[in-house]
Amino acid sequence: MKIASQRVAIVGVGLIGGSLALAGKRAGAFAHVVGAGRSQANLDLALRTGIIDEAHTDVARAVRGADLVVLAAPADACVELLTAVAAAAGPACVLTDVASVKAPICSEAVRLGVGSRFVGAHPIAGGTATGAAAADASLFVGRTVVVTPGVAERAPRDTVARMWRAVGAEVLDLDADAHDGVVAVSSHLPQLLASSLCALVGGDQRQALFLRLCGAGFRDTTRIAAGDAAMWTAIARENRRHLLDAVDRFAELWARVRDALARGDDAEVRALIEEGAAMRRRLGA
Amino acid sequence: MKIASQRVAIVGVGLIGGSLALAGKRAGAFAHVVGAGRSQANLDLALRTGIIDEAHTDVARAVRGADLVVLAAPADACVELLTAVAAAAGPACVLTDVASVKAPICSEAVRLGVGSRFVGAHPIAGGTATGAAAADASLFVGRTVVVTPGVAERAPRDTVARMWRAVGAEVLDLDADAHDGVVAVSSHLPQLLASSLCALVGGDQRQALFLRLCGAGFRDTTRIAAGDAAMWTAIARENRRHLLDAVDRFAELWARVRDALARGDDAEVRALIEEGAAMRRRLGA
Repeated sequence: MKIASQRVAIVGVGLIGGSLALAGKRAGAFAHVVGAGRSQANLDLALRTGIIDEAHTDVARAVRGADLVVLAAPADACVELLTAVAAAAGPACVLTDVASVKAPICSEAVRLGVGSRFVGAHPIAGGTATGAAAADASLFVGRTVVVTPGVAERAPRDTVARMWRAVGAEVLDLDADAHDGVVAVSSHLPQLLASSLCALVGGDQRQALFLRLCGAGFRDTTRIAAGDAAMWTAIARENRRHLLDAVDRFAELWARVRDALARGDDAEVRALIEEGAAMRRRLGA
Repeated sequence: MKIASQRVAIVGVGLIGGSLALAGKRAGAFAHVVGAGRSQANLDLALRTGIIDEAHTDVARAVRGADLVVLAAPADACVELLTAVAAAAGPACVLTDVASVKAPICSEAVRLGVGSRFVGAHPIAGGTATGAAAADASLFVGRTVVVTPGVAERAPRDTVARMWRAVGAEVLDLDADAHDGVVAVSSHLPQLLASSLCALVGGDQRQALFLRLCGAGFRDTTRIAAGDAAMWTAIARENRRHLLDAVDRFAELWARVRDALARGDDAEVRALIEEGAAMRRRLGA
């Protein structure tokens, strides 16, 4: 495996950042990993378990001298951190991130004058566990990582693609805005639906009965609603335009379902359920 | 274990009916199980694997001489079958069902003059597999079975409760209408949300990209949408009034979410997500 970086700084050593550090080191893609984060306890854990080789709570210190910086904080924090990182990292340092909304950070990179060496990325992988303790070297194996290079040059694009391939992921190049439109429907809309369904039940006076009568369907459908509220709020804010469009499209469809039910139009209800079932079966288990 | 029935007829030897037959026999709650169904191949399989002891495609023949009849067909079919079953079964035969909507079949039992010995039931258990081949003797262990006795007498109520406890379930007595109101939100609404989300994606020209970018969140949220369209359409029809109410309440909440997003009111978006997360965490994994 060709090395992707002699010295990589990972800002945010959580599930994604920690897993990338671990997997990159094991694959031989990273020679030396510097971890940055706000929690000294989390950094200490990451150092102790060999996920990172060096730790700093000061981001500027962490990225100084790095060949590659990976922003692995929540979506809004990545955008905010980019200013400090762009200022402190050397002029040849490749910059990337893992945020699940891509247009805002890609625009910010251009605005800060680092667009030629900023390559946005979004690994379609995750879980509900958090912190360096959740790091898993196999997290990205077989997963798709969307890369949104924007105006980045060839060398930084190759570095980022090489890094993801080294940890077992498949790289898919996309326009940042196209990515954000798709994930608004494939990820952010389901999250908002699940949260809304749970909020509806949570506000119902029959809640104790609900908890007793919830089967596997409700559990599966709402699992994602137990996630981190701050993270999802940030995603909703960063991807507001696309998410609003998805929310409106869902509302239109929901009104059609409502009408079909109210009219007792079983054929239309069934057509909708069959259309959904056909799509879901194409996706597989 | 006290025996629940010397001769039980199970009409519909699918996942639920087959599992009940298997579990009841193993627990010693059923001495002799007669299976009824439209598919001879499915009945043959059930006979061959010892799930049932006798099989008939003619429902009247299957229930003749039974102490206990369990209707384990789809929700609408159970209501339709009750006329033939009530006519063919003896005057002391206990009648029950497993349909996921309870008020229609309980009303029908009263209308047919068998209300005193009809005890509606709904096991909160299931899966996507179908047919006798999917039968699982442990399907009901630790699960809640809602029993809606309506105007049934003590002895039939005891028989049905004994049967479910014998297969490991916990029995919860509820009014049929109260049950239908709760499952409209806890089961039928999630199904309709999942189907609608899949239909939205299925109708989008970016579908190939969606399939590539779908993560665990979308998969979990929509798993239920792959289910049997005929079964869900029947449930939606049978529980229309409660489901419409749930659909309308969801639409109201969705409009509030939409407004909060459009106004950029992060605090309200976050409050909703937190409310949902709190409810979901109470439910557990």
